[in-house]
Amino acid sequence: MIQPNIPDTGQARIVIVGGGFGGISLAKQLKNSPFQVVLLDRNNYHLFQPLLYQVATAGLEPESIAFPLRGIFNKQKNLHFRMAEVKLVRPEDNVLETSIGEVRYDYLVLATGSNTNFFGNKNIEAHAVGMKSLIEAVQIRNYVVKQFEEALLMPTEEAIKPKLNFVMVGGGPTGVELAGAFAELKQHILPKDYPELPLHLMNIYLIEAGPRLLPAMSEASSRKTEEGLGKIGVHVRCNVAVKEYDGEVLQLSDGNTIHSQSLLWSAGVKGVPIAGLPADALIPNGRIVVDEYNLVKGSKNIYTIGDAAQMTNDPAFSKGYPMVAQVAIQQGKNLAINLEAASKHPGHAWKPFKYKDLGSMATIGRNRAVAEVGGMKLSGFFAWMTWMVVHLMTLMGFRNKLVVFTNWFYRYFTFDRGTRIIIKRGAANITKLRQIVQDTRLDD
Amino acid sequence: MIQPNIPDTGQARIVIVGGGFGGISLAKQLKNSPFQVVLLDRNNYHLFQPLLYQVATAGLEPESIAFPLRGIFNKQKNLHFRMAEVKLVRPEDNVLETSIGEVRYDYLVLATGSNTNFFGNKNIEAHAVGMKSLIEAVQIRNYVVKQFEEALLMPTEEAIKPKLNFVMVGGGPTGVELAGAFAELKQHILPKDYPELPLHLMNIYLIEAGPRLLPAMSEASSRKTEEGLGKIGVHVRCNVAVKEYDGEVLQLSDGNTIHSQSLLWSAGVKGVPIAGLPADALIPNGRIVVDEYNLVKGSKNIYTIGDAAQMTNDPAFSKGYPMVAQVAIQQGKNLAINLEAASKHPGHAWKPFKYKDLGSMATIGRNRAVAEVGGMKLSGFFAWMTWMVVHLMTLMGFRNKLVVFTNWFYRYFTFDRGTRIIIKRGAANITKLRQIVQDTRLDD
Repeated sequence: MIQPNIPDTGQARIVIVGGGFGGISLAKQLKNSPFQVVLLDRNNYHLFQPLLYQVATAGLEPESIAFPLRGIFNKQKNLHFRMAEVKLVRPEDNVLETSIGEVRYDYLVLATGSNTNFFGNKNIEAHAVGMKSLIEAVQIRNYVVKQFEEALLMPTEEAIKPKLNFVMVGGGPTGVELAGAFAELKQHILPKDYPELPLHLMNIYLIEAGPRLLPAMSEASSRKTEEGLGKIGVHVRCNVAVKEYDGEVLQLSDGNTIHSQSLLWSAGVKGVPIAGLPADALIPNGRIVVDEYNLVKGSKNIYTIGDAAQMTNDPAFSKGYPMVAQVAIQQGKNLAINLEAASKHPGHAWKPFKYKDLGSMATIGRNRAVAEVGGMKLSGFFAWMTWMVVHLMTLMGFRNKLVVFTNWFYRYFTFDRGTRIIIKRGAANITKLRQIVQDTRLDD
Repeated sequence: MIQPNIPDTGQARIVIVGGGFGGISLAKQLKNSPFQVVLLDRNNYHLFQPLLYQVATAGLEPESIAFPLRGIFNKQKNLHFRMAEVKLVRPEDNVLETSIGEVRYDYLVLATGSNTNFFGNKNIEAHAVGMKSLIEAVQIRNYVVKQFEEALLMPTEEAIKPKLNFVMVGGGPTGVELAGAFAELKQHILPKDYPELPLHLMNIYLIEAGPRLLPAMSEASSRKTEEGLGKIGVHVRCNVAVKEYDGEVLQLSDGNTIHSQSLLWSAGVKGVPIAGLPADALIPNGRIVVDEYNLVKGSKNIYTIGDAAQMTNDPAFSKGYPMVAQVAIQQGKNLAINLEAASKHPGHAWKPFKYKDLGSMATIGRNRAVAEVGGMKLSGFFAWMTWMVVHLMTLMGFRNKLVVFTNWFYRYFTFDRGTRIIIKRGAANITKLRQIVQDTRLDD
């Protein structure tokens, strides 16, 4: 009965799957193009993933980092948004099968992003929780606050420990920033909110399989990050991998164990391909092989951009570009320019993608960050201010900027985290938390 | 295994069930009392119910009207908060049975508030949704946005209609304010976000069984409210009751029917008593009979305040006081003063409760409200400003005030509603919506 109801305007139609950084960038760039643009997303909002960790640690409300996709595009007349789940592509028919029916395309762009990668360990996947979606972040917040509440009810210190041990796996920006935020919870929230809890029983671990944190940055920044986290009480363990986890006890490759009911996994991501693509375009980590124009291998009119795209045209990134927002944004823009030029001047030579690395940064709790921008290495308070300004500026929407700024301003002076509420009751344990997150995703 | 772990300090212990307006007022007033105060609530936050309707209509984020109970009391040393569900009271033992174990009390105060009253109609209860909790408001928002998204996919106007017809039942402040906010959605959000939808198919109905809206206010205010709602396109139907509803078609007492998949019910509330109370203290609408000191009939040390209390000491309120925040706040304060005075001066005469009516008010969409304060009747823009100031001032927490103010400020100048996102996928129909809300409540 339901149907996409996308008007047939006679224009060539570009269908974009995914309203993340890449999809948005592409769609915006096509504003004055001769194409009809159809944007599909399972959610009706664009998510600013870099601040997810603050939602998970009660520092921001989820609505402040999500922006309605219709709000972004309601002045772009050539764009039609539909909330839909894509099931299958049929390249031979130029048709997508989706939860709202079949959608025809002339050009298809997959900007489906990435998902948490547990590297095949089913036990860890069953008991750990990732942090890629808004619902995961909200559920983590609910869960963490519930762990504090329940710790109060335990009869012995032995029973309290696993509730107050929080383990982050993965030493990239997400793991680092999350660990820093948990350290802030321990320093500033726990003593005030839970004076009855023995504070020393709360421990925050950051586990990284490689030799150093933030491997994409310089060794100096890695060292400063490890020092900074150590100062605020985070136990950093590099060169250590997680071997097993059953929801209660974590087994590490160095033989140690940690009793924890909270394993937050940001140790890897993988591409999210769509069924029906040419088999030889897929590589094991889920990315889709594209050429330097983002054209999918073995295809004529299907493109992939961002995290989902495996492009190896630059020897400096022989394993593919990093899965970061900047790559997605730049590929989206480049593809839009190429598509528009080709439609206006059919013989026009396509411009290959060239990545311009704008740098990277990460906060380390309060007042401290590391940043590497344009060849400069910053750290400490100034890097932290830079981090805040860059994130505020790139966050979409004036209202969201205001609300985030209000929260940061308030938090800076009060040390308080206002959103530490449990809206949906938290899950009883991390395995159930994971189920809730999954159910929620699939819930129609 | 879990236990409440409330320290035994030797002080007499007052256990308060419920962190709403009444419970908070009582607990705060007991700050410097000789009592140990134990506050129990199923949630870990105080909810500012008067603004729930704005969460439901994407005007505010849920976190902006919820305030962590631990944040309110973290400087009150004699208070212990526990998140718990109360199951049963055993008056003969002075013990509460709860989800976290048995809690002993010397004095028990029930401030359990009220819940949606469907007056025994099981079909309506199964298919309509109330608006008393934060999760209900969030789910209504998700559901409403999903109705808009789905309306786009319908093959015919006949199929669109029930998705865009929204029916509010109950002409009290909640119904009036909700209807006004829906009218704003229609005027300012729908044309921009959904230019493809036929706007005239969205209809907002406000159904009231009695002869006029806002029966607690003057007839002049009722008339102004009805006129104001009419001007912004709300169909007001007074003297009409809802007879039946199956989730799709609403049957009214005047013989008319409305095709709607969205029935929002604020036509009545009922008390939420706890099992184990003296049977003759309960009246049919769930309220608990108390004397003029809020002492429960047939009990020596159990009190009830606020919506849950049925007190008839004032001939002007022979059916009991209205179920509004002011009564709860004033009863909480009066009871605290009496309990403290009695403990310090055992022979002290208790002060009977005397209600001071501070007035009432309701917004009618944008720029318009009615207010009756201290004998004055206000309406229009000035009443609307008054309404905003009063709500901002009484909202708890500086951060929440800032975030709400930010939202209002932004919305006033942009006509935008920033939180129109679906975090958890919306329910497919209103019956499922109701199930989600119920499951969420019961979810442990």
